[in-house]
Amino acid sequence: MSNISPFEFIAQKQAGQAHTPEDIKRFIDDFMCDEIPDYQMSAWLMAVFFKGMTNEETVALTNAMIETGERIEFGNIYASAGDKHSTGGVGDKITLLLAPLVAAAGVAVPTITGRGLGFTGGTLDKLESIPGMRTDLSVQQIVDQIKSFKLAFGAQTSDLVPADKSIYALRDVTSTVRSYPLITASILSKKVTEGIDGIVFDVKCGKGAFMESYDEALKLSNWLVRVASCFKMKVACLITDMNAPLGTSVGNWLEIVESVRALKSEAIEPDIKELTLALGGTLLAVLGECDTPDSGWRKLDTIWSSGAGFKKFVEAVKAQGGDINSFSNMDDINKPKASLTLKADKPGYIFDINSREIGFSSIALGAGRKNVNSVIDSSAGILFHKSVGSKVVLGTPILTLFAESEELCEGIVDRVRKAVRIEDIEPKKKPLIIRAITTEGDYSWDEFRKKKTINIMQKYLHLGQYPVF
Amino acid sequence: MSNISPFEFIAQKQAGQAHTPEDIKRFIDDFMCDEIPDYQMSAWLMAVFFKGMTNEETVALTNAMIETGERIEFGNIYASAGDKHSTGGVGDKITLLLAPLVAAAGVAVPTITGRGLGFTGGTLDKLESIPGMRTDLSVQQIVDQIKSFKLAFGAQTSDLVPADKSIYALRDVTSTVRSYPLITASILSKKVTEGIDGIVFDVKCGKGAFMESYDEALKLSNWLVRVASCFKMKVACLITDMNAPLGTSVGNWLEIVESVRALKSEAIEPDIKELTLALGGTLLAVLGECDTPDSGWRKLDTIWSSGAGFKKFVEAVKAQGGDINSFSNMDDINKPKASLTLKADKPGYIFDINSREIGFSSIALGAGRKNVNSVIDSSAGILFHKSVGSKVVLGTPILTLFAESEELCEGIVDRVRKAVRIEDIEPKKKPLIIRAITTEGDYSWDEFRKKKTINIMQKYLHLGQYPVF
Repeated sequence: MSNISPFEFIAQKQAGQAHTPEDIKRFIDDFMCDEIPDYQMSAWLMAVFFKGMTNEETVALTNAMIETGERIEFGNIYASAGDKHSTGGVGDKITLLLAPLVAAAGVAVPTITGRGLGFTGGTLDKLESIPGMRTDLSVQQIVDQIKSFKLAFGAQTSDLVPADKSIYALRDVTSTVRSYPLITASILSKKVTEGIDGIVFDVKCGKGAFMESYDEALKLSNWLVRVASCFKMKVACLITDMNAPLGTSVGNWLEIVESVRALKSEAIEPDIKELTLALGGTLLAVLGECDTPDSGWRKLDTIWSSGAGFKKFVEAVKAQGGDINSFSNMDDINKPKASLTLKADKPGYIFDINSREIGFSSIALGAGRKNVNSVIDSSAGILFHKSVGSKVVLGTPILTLFAESEELCEGIVDRVRKAVRIEDIEPKKKPLIIRAITTEGDYSWDEFRKKKTINIMQKYLHLGQYPVF
Repeated sequence: MSNISPFEFIAQKQAGQAHTPEDIKRFIDDFMCDEIPDYQMSAWLMAVFFKGMTNEETVALTNAMIETGERIEFGNIYASAGDKHSTGGVGDKITLLLAPLVAAAGVAVPTITGRGLGFTGGTLDKLESIPGMRTDLSVQQIVDQIKSFKLAFGAQTSDLVPADKSIYALRDVTSTVRSYPLITASILSKKVTEGIDGIVFDVKCGKGAFMESYDEALKLSNWLVRVASCFKMKVACLITDMNAPLGTSVGNWLEIVESVRALKSEAIEPDIKELTLALGGTLLAVLGECDTPDSGWRKLDTIWSSGAGFKKFVEAVKAQGGDINSFSNMDDINKPKASLTLKADKPGYIFDINSREIGFSSIALGAGRKNVNSVIDSSAGILFHKSVGSKVVLGTPILTLFAESEELCEGIVDRVRKAVRIEDIEPKKKPLIIRAITTEGDYSWDEFRKKKTINIMQKYLHLGQYPVF
């Protein structure tokens, strides 16, 4: 065991040197038992921001963070376990659809979801808008739900990766979030803890994403697949467009309503359908449940039409204390006190909707947190009547704002109006799925979706042997 | 007033942008009233380490730190006030000689001295080895001493630049000490607070200095003279060699003994004499008390021979509670419990003494702090019987180690032996003063010592107007 001091550890990173896995583990352990103060951790995080980490260090950090908490272990469930993780978007309710559909296909989905960050929404906040719904499940509860019906919507608790929670809180206030190895370790520590065999990442790219440029999204995708594979996970990553909001709604209960109607096949937006089936199909393919993403897509589509996905969702919500009757009279639950409808101020085509601005506007309406003490208004948000490419005339309703007061709606309407661009010409249709990334290389979606036995890692690396990429 | 948050302030520096003076002031003020936690300060310090600061920012930081405490103001003392600052060396007792000599020449010297750092000794620790001596003077006490007899040996207290104390403590444990703008702001905040008109810096260079290379020393020198001049200070900087320890002793009471004997003209080492008169003479010249450093040198040399410097030293020690009788029976005070003499293991010349190793060895013997809680042994240290260039035969005593126990001496003797190199050939004599730096340019010592009206700043910059260099 090395005897390096916290000071030397920081200085080592500052000089651009790589830490040993043992030193990283000790630094994290000592931080968690308060032997290393926050100010030394934040100095180190800033040094990592500037000097980066190797793949080996990132695996070691992920491992060290995982080991500060419990791991979910299923024992014999006679099924694959998998999950999907998105880097965060606006109107991104895909997990709410994908998780029950994949569980209905026989795969265990012990997903740990997160809260809204920055201008993006969080699946956890959306789930908590269902009356009675609890997400602070113990490890045992997650295991029990998985064993009974293969689906659980958990949250990061003090049992699961507590180090990530503490370190993320520091990163959030010291401007050290935007570091590829730190993002990778934070995401993967939670996902490895789930005890899953495979994962599909949705790395969003565009105005409504943390990674605005394709280059950034590609870099993060490579980090994620590389480090995930070191943990023996079967993995693929889709880089998807996040310029316009997904689906018809942004806001917590609004998105539950949209998801429930979609799961019931009452109303499914094309972008929501495409993303859910592409990501879900890819997950089935990496797990070896189907031979290609396309056959996975078709399998899930059939399950979707059968209503089995909705049944699975109801099962999970019920087990977690949620009021499933709320799904029968959805308009009567979380009724917004005030609303304001934005109409087209000229004829033409909706050329662009700036999802970052929509995200921030939705938070301003009460759907997200302005600071750590904010209370979320489940009813708040934005409902779209039109989407990018829609033809409008003067006065066509485009969207409706929902909030606790008319003042809140009126205070943000100008910002929202500026986020919706109407032009004389029709916008070109852009592909939703931009690229597929695996440890073996990257592909167009059209090539990837037909690929057989994708990413069957022949040479699994034993945990603890850290290759440097 | 800007409304930038601590997060945005950190992110600004992280992106390599310059802060406004107002934002810097607010960040420091908020830190001092605990509104900004240590972890945000340390993240910012690490960002400064990587991205630097402009001259303007450094002046603003210095100002902001000064304004967290009191300033020393003398009112009408009808004399120039000046000081010397060294970046720290091994056996560096120059302040103990220079301050009283310059005060005896009629210049007020309200010096604020510091403790040992790293492998270097601190004037404050040395002074405190005098029985009864107090250095935690209030601003009023410093002013009173200056008014009575022009000399005070103060220390950084909670009254004087408290921000520097708090920030330095953080830098020390987060590996953010080695940043030119942060070093400059830390040094100058204390010196500007002294209310002095001029200053001479001794930037040490070599194995026993923080700035090992000439390039680093030159860079720091330029930072110091540039920023000092923005505070209307008359300033010059000498870059001096710090490869071998200075004088014959390293350790607290040992260095007081050497200094007292030197001030009494009983025994003066050539290197001690040269540095004291060069730095003191330069200080008199920048203050306009003498027309060249050489004439300042001669003036101080005459004062030295007259015994007036020793009288001044005794006056200050007495006023600060020190037992001046201790100077009459110096061998009976702080008597070391154990000693060990190192003898030459072969004949030849002492070719090199590694002062960094000597500094660390002296700390190991008890003369410095291993950590913040260490208690210093005033009697501990190393006494040299021979210096670089001395001829030795087998068995010639080279130096003696002093400590509280024989085990301590024996534990370090091998490290000390390795630090002293004996060769067959005589080493080349290296100049002690390497270069002189002013805001106008840099010079060889031989050129500079004859220079008239050095550094009479014609166009003083008003405080608050920050030029960017």
